[in-house]
Amino acid sequence: MSGELDLMPAGFVRAIDEMALVDHHVHGVTSHDLSRRAFEELITESDRPVPSWMTPFDSQVGHAILRHCAPVLGLDPHCTPEEYLARRARLGADEVNRLLLGAGGIGHFLVETGYRGEELLGPSGMAEVTGVPADEVVRLEAVAEQVAADGCGAGAFADRFAEALWERTRTARGLKSIAAYRCGLDFDPAPPTREEVTEAAGHWLSAGGGRLSDPVLLRHLIWTGLERGLPLQFHIGFGDPDVDLRRSDPLLLRGLIELAEPTGVPLLLLHCYPYQRHAGLLAHAYPNVFFDVGLGVSYTGARAVALVAESLEVAPFAKLLFSSDGFGPAELHHLGALLWRRAMARVLGGFVAEGEWSVEQAMRVAWMVGAENARRVYDLGG
Amino acid sequence: MSGELDLMPAGFVRAIDEMALVDHHVHGVTSHDLSRRAFEELITESDRPVPSWMTPFDSQVGHAILRHCAPVLGLDPHCTPEEYLARRARLGADEVNRLLLGAGGIGHFLVETGYRGEELLGPSGMAEVTGVPADEVVRLEAVAEQVAADGCGAGAFADRFAEALWERTRTARGLKSIAAYRCGLDFDPAPPTREEVTEAAGHWLSAGGGRLSDPVLLRHLIWTGLERGLPLQFHIGFGDPDVDLRRSDPLLLRGLIELAEPTGVPLLLLHCYPYQRHAGLLAHAYPNVFFDVGLGVSYTGARAVALVAESLEVAPFAKLLFSSDGFGPAELHHLGALLWRRAMARVLGGFVAEGEWSVEQAMRVAWMVGAENARRVYDLGG
Amino acid sequence: MSGELDLMPAGFVRAIDEMALVDHHVHGVTSHDLSRRAFEELITESDRPVPSWMTPFDSQVGHAILRHCAPVLGLDPHCTPEEYLARRARLGADEVNRLLLGAGGIGHFLVETGYRGEELLGPSGMAEVTGVPADEVVRLEAVAEQVAADGCGAGAFADRFAEALWERTRTARGLKSIAAYRCGLDFDPAPPTREEVTEAAGHWLSAGGGRLSDPVLLRHLIWTGLERGLPLQFHIGFGDPDVDLRRSDPLLLRGLIELAEPTGVPLLLLHCYPYQRHAGLLAHAYPNVFFDVGLGVSYTGARAVALVAESLEVAPFAKLLFSSDGFGPAELHHLGALLWRRAMARVLGGFVAEGEWSVEQAMRVAWMVGAENARRVYDLGG
Repeated sequence: MSGELDLMPAGFVRAIDEMALVDHHVHGVTSHDLSRRAFEELITESDRPVPSWMTPFDSQVGHAILRHCAPVLGLDPHCTPEEYLARRARLGADEVNRLLLGAGGIGHFLVETGYRGEELLGPSGMAEVTGVPADEVVRLEAVAEQVAADGCGAGAFADRFAEALWERTRTARGLKSIAAYRCGLDFDPAPPTREEVTEAAGHWLSAGGGRLSDPVLLRHLIWTGLERGLPLQFHIGFGDPDVDLRRSDPLLLRGLIELAEPTGVPLLLLHCYPYQRHAGLLAHAYPNVFFDVGLGVSYTGARAVALVAESLEVAPFAKLLFSSDGFGPAELHHLGALLWRRAMARVLGGFVAEGEWSVEQAMRVAWMVGAENARRVYDLGG
Repeated sequence: MSGELDLMPAGFVRAIDEMALVDHHVHGVTSHDLSRRAFEELITESDRPVPSWMTPFDSQVGHAILRHCAPVLGLDPHCTPEEYLARRARLGADEVNRLLLGAGGIGHFLVETGYRGEELLGPSGMAEVTGVPADEVVRLEAVAEQVAADGCGAGAFADRFAEALWERTRTARGLKSIAAYRCGLDFDPAPPTREEVTEAAGHWLSAGGGRLSDPVLLRHLIWTGLERGLPLQFHIGFGDPDVDLRRSDPLLLRGLIELAEPTGVPLLLLHCYPYQRHAGLLAHAYPNVFFDVGLGVSYTGARAVALVAESLEVAPFAKLLFSSDGFGPAELHHLGALLWRRAMARVLGGFVAEGEWSVEQAMRVAWMVGAENARRVYDLGG
Repeated sequence: MSGELDLMPAGFVRAIDEMALVDHHVHGVTSHDLSRRAFEELITESDRPVPSWMTPFDSQVGHAILRHCAPVLGLDPHCTPEEYLARRARLGADEVNRLLLGAGGIGHFLVETGYRGEELLGPSGMAEVTGVPADEVVRLEAVAEQVAADGCGAGAFADRFAEALWERTRTARGLKSIAAYRCGLDFDPAPPTREEVTEAAGHWLSAGGGRLSDPVLLRHLIWTGLERGLPLQFHIGFGDPDVDLRRSDPLLLRGLIELAEPTGVPLLLLHCYPYQRHAGLLAHAYPNVFFDVGLGVSYTGARAVALVAESLEVAPFAKLLFSSDGFGPAELHHLGALLWRRAMARVLGGFVAEGEWSVEQAMRVAWMVGAENARRVYDLGG
């Protein structure tokens, strides 16, 4: 592979490195300093305590942090975790965020705010640190849970949710569903009736609201989201242990995709690992389906090239987007972008070196996936 | 990879390039000139109109056409879609077909005639254009739907279908089932009883026949096909949006494979993407199972090498076949063969370059997969 | 790839070649001479007679035997099957075993004795031939079937099984469940009640015992195994035709994994092909989950590098182990180790050559996966 990269025109690799990406699904960075334990718990998707006999630094994402983030903080690549964390602590969270987000080269952030948002920078904070635009993506379930927390009767829930959603999304660029976490994607794709919604809302609200996991209500949120008309993101595949991966295969969304087709709303399948080929097949078949391989790129580190390559098989290149899915430590935001750039350079550069693509085609596809597709789908201009 | 190919004896790559392949599953080429819109709709498996903001030329198969078919039509590789389509129009469909089919280097075609066959060249037309033998593969569902169209009572359906099948297959080399499209592969594998067939035929025929999707009748077609005794092909995996990919996993055929084992009829799993490893496992376990990775090879273009590599893992090499699954524009026929040759040269050549295989072993496996296995399974002689 | 290996410090490749591995899941070698037919039937997972028109030598594992085992027996690499089998016969099983096991470089064997153990060397025999420690892994189902064979009433079964298990495992290092073969992994994960066990035992024992496939009893065996507290291995994925691969996806074990978490018992997912990414995701999410890609490494031969690479994506490196799953001919034991070493050298060496990892990181991960993790999980010392 290194041989292939050497064969590429230096301008190609540099152009990918310098491209201003649209990170179409990201969370904020944490503005607090992090203990070793807190840091380690944020560089894994596992929500279990880290066992004493292991460290997440002994993983692809851990190696990638020591390789690629250490130099941004002024350390040698492949330093020890102790050296890395000591430097991180000395610089402080603000400076670390400024350095790592600055090195990421993102041109526009779409920030999903619905999960532990109070611990993280919001869109305006992200814009302030980076000096580039940051817009919001609103999580449907968070809006519904807020409606319940504010007090609401069962019969009023549907209207109240719609009002709250329109209100919360006045300036938002997109919506997100985490039905994969809450009930799995094997739900009945049809919109529930008003009566079903009222009945389900009654059960949920009388139990005090809180975490929403009723499939009828989750479907109602999705269909209300489709009416709202903003691009709709779906968590797919890889995530914390809360997700049953058997039930997060994007092929399970086929029924919903077909029913939603007449609305013209873009459906964006997020992450997708290990189902990136399934996502590509859906994006091939259905005009309203788009996908990315964020999150997986960061967590597979030196293997991100394989994941990106598998995402470039059957989907039209207009259907693939870039995201980092960074959450918490800015290392994840930086790696999401850096490893994606390296993987794209290797994969597309490989196609060129093998004589299959022209450099111009490679450059154009990198640009489509890295920025242009997201600008079109989310109507970002530029 | 290019380095590995350079290390290969030139004779190895040339031998793979010049091998007369048996294309054991292909459709005819279209004999009409094609508008840009018609052409674009035929180089995707999607049946939806192509959205205005994209073109299938921006996909692996699109890039492969511009890379590999353009030179056959006298253009530079990586020309623009506009240049390509203009040249194609100027040459006319007959000349395009002659050039592209000629460049494919197929030695024997097995042509499946059951889908939009009236728009395409049949076996004799394919033989005429190419100067090599072309035999027929008969689609079970098409025969059954013709029986219904010709008028038939429910009680007579089983006999009439059997008669029609024997009649239609007097010179055919194989049969094909598209149960994956019609009811999914998770059907009860046992043959239905005569009574069940009559009852199901009654419902279908009284509703006017047409598209056959009743699982009882689809099973009956398969079991009648097994009695007929010709090699039986199954659509697996990748296809147009009509197929639910969740229900086209070849592992779902395990029950049928075991029940069919005593018949000795070869079962051929077609395409298989993204389930090529599943197909390989079945081919490993069961003597009556064979598979190919056609269609996927054309549509993954520069990534076909990954697909071919995954097909060469656990299956005995006597169980893997070549097909293009070309349908319509002869570009798909040409790419199916050309990309398969390139992928085989790279993958097998890689095994040799890494010191794992001898050149003789690589050559022999290419020959088995490219021609010999199909000649044995379909009893083609040669 | 060969280019990348050339770039590696010679010491790295040599260190991986010379590392004393812990083979944490292996069966004994056969101590009998083998006819060609018997040998061929042991180098495939298929239990069907080998068809006359093919030989398992025409497969990845067949090519790997001729490439890597032939030189150990004093032949040229890539000799013919006939030459290989003639030399094997001349040397005799004892000498073949001594040569091939000696070349494998295993430092500690954990020998699973529950399948056709009477035809194979046991742990003491393996230790004698190799001169290294060999401990036992006990198959739960074999113990239960022995309890039935010794005569037992339904009401006494649970106690008798527990007694027999504790007795049989006094010096054992681990347990194994083959529920994947017997009922599939989609079983109710909760422990059955005493009444359910007695009732199910009644049905099984009154039918004469024998092959145990009742899900209630299989679950009871697993939960008794969890009480016993030894590391518990699960057959996953690839195996003989007896296994329904649809029902051997490790994601199906999620419920059991979560219920078993409080016991602290390590759960080890064996083989996993083609579900190695699924296994990696479980190992990422759950502290009690470990996995290996044994068996698949031997059977994918020159493609083992892809399998090993996919196992090194999202799992923390402390969660991955080495096994050969060798069974019968010592060729499988040798290849399991040799192909793993070559694949690890290529994959990890590739990470180094691409500038992603340091040599020290690569060396450390090879050592963790090859030996250290197993020594910690099974408390082997060293």
